[in-house]
Amino acid sequence: MTIGSRRDVLGGIGAGVVLAGLGSGRALGAGVGSPRKIGYAVVGLGYYATRQIMPNFANCEHSRLVALVSGTPAKLEQYGTEYGIPKTHRYSYADFDRIRDNPDIDAVYIVLPNSLHAEYTIRAAQAGKHVMCEKPMATSVAECRAMIAACRKAGRKLMIGYRSRFEPYNRLAIELARGGHVGPTQLVTAEHGFPIQPNQWRLDKPLSGGGSMMDIGIYSLNAARYLTGEEPVSVSAVESTDRSDPRFRTVEDRVTFALRFPSGVIANCISSYSSAHNGYRVVGTKGWIEMEPATPYVGQAMTIRKDNQTQSRVLPAPAKNQFAGQLDHLAECVLNGTDPIVPGEEGLADLRVIEAIYRSAAEGRQVSLSA
Amino acid sequence: MTIGSRRDVLGGIGAGVVLAGLGSGRALGAGVGSPRKIGYAVVGLGYYATRQIMPNFANCEHSRLVALVSGTPAKLEQYGTEYGIPKTHRYSYADFDRIRDNPDIDAVYIVLPNSLHAEYTIRAAQAGKHVMCEKPMATSVAECRAMIAACRKAGRKLMIGYRSRFEPYNRLAIELARGGHVGPTQLVTAEHGFPIQPNQWRLDKPLSGGGSMMDIGIYSLNAARYLTGEEPVSVSAVESTDRSDPRFRTVEDRVTFALRFPSGVIANCISSYSSAHNGYRVVGTKGWIEMEPATPYVGQAMTIRKDNQTQSRVLPAPAKNQFAGQLDHLAECVLNGTDPIVPGEEGLADLRVIEAIYRSAAEGRQVSLSA
Repeated sequence: MTIGSRRDVLGGIGAGVVLAGLGSGRALGAGVGSPRKIGYAVVGLGYYATRQIMPNFANCEHSRLVALVSGTPAKLEQYGTEYGIPKTHRYSYADFDRIRDNPDIDAVYIVLPNSLHAEYTIRAAQAGKHVMCEKPMATSVAECRAMIAACRKAGRKLMIGYRSRFEPYNRLAIELARGGHVGPTQLVTAEHGFPIQPNQWRLDKPLSGGGSMMDIGIYSLNAARYLTGEEPVSVSAVESTDRSDPRFRTVEDRVTFALRFPSGVIANCISSYSSAHNGYRVVGTKGWIEMEPATPYVGQAMTIRKDNQTQSRVLPAPAKNQFAGQLDHLAECVLNGTDPIVPGEEGLADLRVIEAIYRSAAEGRQVSLSA
Repeated sequence: MTIGSRRDVLGGIGAGVVLAGLGSGRALGAGVGSPRKIGYAVVGLGYYATRQIMPNFANCEHSRLVALVSGTPAKLEQYGTEYGIPKTHRYSYADFDRIRDNPDIDAVYIVLPNSLHAEYTIRAAQAGKHVMCEKPMATSVAECRAMIAACRKAGRKLMIGYRSRFEPYNRLAIELARGGHVGPTQLVTAEHGFPIQPNQWRLDKPLSGGGSMMDIGIYSLNAARYLTGEEPVSVSAVESTDRSDPRFRTVEDRVTFALRFPSGVIANCISSYSSAHNGYRVVGTKGWIEMEPATPYVGQAMTIRKDNQTQSRVLPAPAKNQFAGQLDHLAECVLNGTDPIVPGEEGLADLRVIEAIYRSAAEGRQVSLSA
C-alpha cells in the first residue's frame, strides 16, 4: 500500500485553493489576528463524539467545533447550547447537504455507525468538505475505494480516526519496534476486547457491518501493521461465537487471526466481544516491548524487556492528548497542503485484511493477501 | 481422550504383582525399615538429566537414583562417582537390555533425544521396568501408540514428564481457570520460546522430529489443554522459518496456532526458537489469570485481574519442588497401583495436535481433530 502517493499530494494542493476562501476567524468568536483554525462539523452525537471528541476541541491549536449534525433535535439543542453552536450551524441528516453553503465548516468528523461512513464521507466531499472518518473506515473494501475516489475527485483530504498514531507511547513503540530496539522483530501479539453490553447498534450487522472485528478488533490489526510497518501477505483466522447469546444473533464474538508479514514476522491477534483485552507485545531476538493497556483513552503503560532486564518506561504528559493531536493533524494537513499520516488508504488497508479474516474464518483456510 | 481408563487401572494392578518382588531398601545404602523407595535408572546424561533431574532425587520421598545409562563412559564415571552408583549399575546403550536383570531398577527415566523415546520406552517395558519419558513423548502419534501398547502389554506404568502438573502455581491456575474464578473462560493465550543456540541435537530433525514445536512449543499446547481441561476440535497454524539461518536447515522456527475447543474457547498459542516467551493467560468474562513466567524451573509468577483489580498471587514454597514431585508421583503410582495423572495417553494427545499443527501450517488450512 502506498501512503502519501502523488495523487494525495495533488489532492492537498487542490484543497489549498479552497482554503483561500475560508473566513479566518470570522465566525464563532475567534478574534481577528488569531491563528487560522479549521472548522469542524461533528456528524453523529453519540458517546464517543460527545464525551471524547467534542470536549477536546478546547485542547486544539488549529481546530474548532463549528457545527453539529444529528437526527435527534434534543441533542442538537443540548450540545448546541453547551458548545455555543448557533442554530444556523445545527443540521439534521435530511439537511446534511446544506453544509455546502456554510463556509465556517472546513471539515466534517464522521462518528456514525460503520455502515453510514461511506455515504456521509462521499456526501461531505461532494459538499466541498474535508473528512475525518472514524474507524473502521467502512464495512467493505469497495466502500473504502468509493470514499477515497470521492474525496480525491473533490480535492478534499480524507483521514481516518486512528487516534493511537497521535499518542506518545504508541509513537515510541513504533519507533522502538521498527528501529530494532529489542533486535529484529520475530513475533507480535495484539489483543483487544471487552464484554459488550446488549442492545446497541454495534450488535446489529446492517449498521455495524460485523462484530468485534469491526470494532475493537481493528486496534489489534492496526497495531500489528503499524508496529511492523509492513502489510500482511496472508491471514489465518478462527472465529468463535455463541449464537444462542442474544448479543450475537447477527455479529461475531471472538476472532483470533495470525498475520504473516513479508519479513517473516507473524502477528498473533485477538478480537473479542466477551472478554477484556487491551495490549500488544513486540518480541524481538533480544527482548520485547509491551504496552498494556495499549490503546485506552488515557493511561497507556509501556514495559520493555531487554538483556534480561524488565523496566517500565514512563513518558512525560504530552502537551496535546491523542484526541486533540488527531483533530489538529487533519487541520494542519488542510492548512499546509500536506497528507494525513492515516489517510483513506490506511483505512482501506485494514478493511482489506478484515475481509480476508472473515473469509479465512468462514472457509477454514489461510487467505493470501499478496498485492 | 480418556485418561485413567479401565485398562490403565488394570495395568496398574499388573504392576503391583511385580512390586512384590522388589528388594525394599536392600541395595544402595537404604537402611532396613526405611520407607520403600522406587529405584530409577536415568537414561541419557545431558544437561536436563544431570542438572535438573538427578540432583532432585535428594528431595524425593519415594524415589531414588539407582542406575545410569549413557553412551559416554566418562559421564558414567563422573556421575556414577558423584551419586554413588556402583559400576554394576552403570550401563551403555548396548548393555541397556540388561537392566532386566537388575532388581534395584524399578523404573527408567528417558531423557534422550525425542526420536529415541519410543525405542527405549519399549525396550524398558520389555525389560519389565516402569517408564517415565520426557516430553514430547515421541515424534509421532504412531510411536506414542506403540509405547502405550508396549507398557500395557508388560503391565508397566508409563508416565510423561509434564513437570508443570506438579508445580503449585500451575496447579492453582488449573483450579482457578476450570473453576470459573474469572468467569467462564473465553480465550487462552500461551507463549513459549527462546532464541536457540546452534549446533545441538534439537536442530537436527532426525533426532528431534521437528523444531520449536517439538520442544518449547509443547508447553504452550499442553497448557492450553490443561487450563481448559478440553481436547481441541480443530487447529489452525502458521509457520515462519528463515531457512537461510543455519540453525533452521531442517527444523522450523516460529509457529503460531489457534486451537478451538468444544466449549467455544479459542487458545491462541506461540512457539518460537528465535525469541523469548514464557507465559499464558486465561481470559474469562470477568477478568484473567496470568502466569509469567509460567513454566520455568523456578520462579513462577501469577497475576489475577478480577472486578477491575489486578493483584499478584504469591504461594508459599512447596515442600517438594516440581521435579521431585514428578519423580515421586510415578513412584507412588507404582507403590499404590494407581495411574499417573499424565500417562502415555497425555503425551499422545499432544502429539496428535502437533501432527495437526504441522499439517495445518503446511497445507494452509484448518485441520479438524474431532474424534
